[in-house]
Amino acid sequence: MPTILLTNALIVTMDDALSVHENGWLQVDGATITALGSGTPPKLPDAEILDCGGDIVMPGMVNTHAHMAMSVFRGLGEDVDDRLYRYILPLERKFVSAEMVRAGTALAAVEMIQGGVTTVADMYYFETEVGHVCAEAGLRAIVGQTLADFAPPDHKDFDEGFARVEELVSLFAGHPLVTPSIAPHAPYSTGRDVMARVAQWSADHPNVPVQMHLAESTLEVNWARETHGKSTVAVTAEAGLLKPNLICAHCLQLDDDDIRLMSEHQVCVATNPRSNGKAGRGIAPVEKLRNAGLPVGIGSDGAMSGNTLDLFSQFAPVSMFAKLLGGSRKPLPAVDVIKMATIEGARVLGLNLKTGSLERGKQADLIRISLAAPRLHPIYDPYSALVFAAMPTDVTHTMVAGRWLMRERRVETLDTRKSVADAVQVASRFKAEMREIDRRS
Amino acid sequence: MPTILLTNALIVTMDDALSVHENGWLQVDGATITALGSGTPPKLPDAEILDCGGDIVMPGMVNTHAHMAMSVFRGLGEDVDDRLYRYILPLERKFVSAEMVRAGTALAAVEMIQGGVTTVADMYYFETEVGHVCAEAGLRAIVGQTLADFAPPDHKDFDEGFARVEELVSLFAGHPLVTPSIAPHAPYSTGRDVMARVAQWSADHPNVPVQMHLAESTLEVNWARETHGKSTVAVTAEAGLLKPNLICAHCLQLDDDDIRLMSEHQVCVATNPRSNGKAGRGIAPVEKLRNAGLPVGIGSDGAMSGNTLDLFSQFAPVSMFAKLLGGSRKPLPAVDVIKMATIEGARVLGLNLKTGSLERGKQADLIRISLAAPRLHPIYDPYSALVFAAMPTDVTHTMVAGRWLMRERRVETLDTRKSVADAVQVASRFKAEMREIDRRS
Repeated sequence: MPTILLTNALIVTMDDALSVHENGWLQVDGATITALGSGTPPKLPDAEILDCGGDIVMPGMVNTHAHMAMSVFRGLGEDVDDRLYRYILPLERKFVSAEMVRAGTALAAVEMIQGGVTTVADMYYFETEVGHVCAEAGLRAIVGQTLADFAPPDHKDFDEGFARVEELVSLFAGHPLVTPSIAPHAPYSTGRDVMARVAQWSADHPNVPVQMHLAESTLEVNWARETHGKSTVAVTAEAGLLKPNLICAHCLQLDDDDIRLMSEHQVCVATNPRSNGKAGRGIAPVEKLRNAGLPVGIGSDGAMSGNTLDLFSQFAPVSMFAKLLGGSRKPLPAVDVIKMATIEGARVLGLNLKTGSLERGKQADLIRISLAAPRLHPIYDPYSALVFAAMPTDVTHTMVAGRWLMRERRVETLDTRKSVADAVQVASRFKAEMREIDRRS
Repeated sequence: MPTILLTNALIVTMDDALSVHENGWLQVDGATITALGSGTPPKLPDAEILDCGGDIVMPGMVNTHAHMAMSVFRGLGEDVDDRLYRYILPLERKFVSAEMVRAGTALAAVEMIQGGVTTVADMYYFETEVGHVCAEAGLRAIVGQTLADFAPPDHKDFDEGFARVEELVSLFAGHPLVTPSIAPHAPYSTGRDVMARVAQWSADHPNVPVQMHLAESTLEVNWARETHGKSTVAVTAEAGLLKPNLICAHCLQLDDDDIRLMSEHQVCVATNPRSNGKAGRGIAPVEKLRNAGLPVGIGSDGAMSGNTLDLFSQFAPVSMFAKLLGGSRKPLPAVDVIKMATIEGARVLGLNLKTGSLERGKQADLIRISLAAPRLHPIYDPYSALVFAAMPTDVTHTMVAGRWLMRERRVETLDTRKSVADAVQVASRFKAEMREIDRRS
């Protein structure tokens, strides 16, 4: 790979000092950022040079919670309160296969690359397929094989589920981009004993991240109270699963004791504001969690729940929710939202030494954001512009580990048209089955 | 003007029956929609034909509350709690002029045309300039001259303010696109006696819409309680200003008596979810208001508050807020959000006989939305796709009264580059003054 030199950029590094380089340049050799600064760039006669025309260059975004394959469910049964049991679980049982997972994941990967996501934490079924598609797409990914007790499409019991996890781990051990992960679905759908089994397995595999939905719904909170007489966080702690490599998604229904427990055990949080808001489920106490020392990243959740998979779509929701909880425009300033979307998200996934900021020696995971749109101007503060005015369609270039995944809005690693066509074909089968379900009911 | 024929479109009409024409066509003669349907389009050999390639064609959106000129304040002092008194009012007093208003309004008009807004209700100062720029841009607009007691930049007292209103009304009387309007700023910044004077003036000018911020802030609610011993809505009613041509912006702090009063007087509401959420001010009870029979439109507020001026940016917030208040995904279905953004918004502005839906005999105010983005697929329901997956950048064509304001993303009525450059120049003066303010404090 030749040296790549980005010049004439407004470089938003997200390093510890929050350095911003006006008229900045950045050098990439192989997979790595080897130098960056402002002013005159180094003379590199053999380098591939990209003049960024004053555009923003920033770390690629880290989507800390997604179900990529569910892109084929995007907008299905919107506004239908019981759609999970009426449509989604029956459709999953009938149609989710390795093939469907590949189709949905490819569409999601295209959307993420186009929207500036360079790292994603996924959990779903047939997760080896997700790993293969992400590797082909060139995305950095944590791929979590889900374990659940509700007859999910790829394991009839937990023994089979664990076998799938083992297969995933052996397949992607040492992969440069794809990290295998174990993903107990949620406390209520795993149960305390199986959570303890996961905790035990995790102790033997300390480098495998664990992902779980936590404190997401009233159903879950009631299960914990009724079955164990305590909060769902306390049940999880009792099972030994609250640990530094646990990525907790949602975290809506928490009291101060729960937050203290999570803080003591140094877990990480993935907040999904658009998904939670759209479901009317509640608002995560993001400021409280961060003030308790917990890193909080941002997730899109599945397209079934949040519809879009970029992080720009999450910025206004996560900001508004914090400001509404605080009753002022002060909480969660724009710069903190960009932190959560980059370096703090990387910390949530245990990848902060590799990605999440533009620094010498880190992986070259970066995006260029065009400032051509009138909607972005004037700019008093680049963080405010990124959080409240930029759109995923402003991303023109996406690079992971020194490889261009998109240039001038053209995705280079996947077939965009095919990804849409394949997903539309899956959707046509879903639509026929939904008509059948509606007819029967 | 030649006949224009749009073909091969998914036409989302927003008529009373919510007709959707697959493989639809629509005929425009002069300013008017003369026919539409699905299947084989009429043979019109002299027509200008636009093959929409299966894209969505829908009514242009109605932004029911904006301060267009404030685009030059976009993102200024984001997250600073006292920025209104610290920066904005001093900057307005020092810099707001006819020239600045033209610059800010032009930038806003470009953004609105690019984002699919075809009708806007504006209130600010030097409002004749706003009217001129909207007329030049080709936007349908209600332009409201603001009246306020805090030494605003264009009138030292209410007599001068009323003189400005009279000038505006005489200048735009009978204009095909621009409707003049009177805009008392808010109950607390106008006072009961002046509200009564506005009500009297309004009785003499029944076709002039009245716009006012109402029940927006704790400051206002406290003012009403302390000064008049009742709610701000009750004070407004007492002044005689609660009337069918009153467009009430924000409406956050309302109790059931207020809503009953507003319903009895048949006022209209403009909700601004992104602005309200970002300020941490609260959530408007949109479902309650609509259930009480009040039409509710969607507004962007000024770019200072909401940052973007399209309505797509408001769709997730307005939806999430209703669903969070209701504790379920059922409230305010996607189709209702699109109603609010089109025909219901037009009703709020008293323009529903002219615009807000695609029907024979109505003005040809419409937009084409590209379905090229993978992010939009699959589509189970066009309303869900529009509300939760579409972006303002998907709008390719914008037409008002049969005139193309944008084709293939190229704005045809205003100089896009100049609008950005002029606004950036204004912003540079603001930045210098802000440094001075910070130095002094």
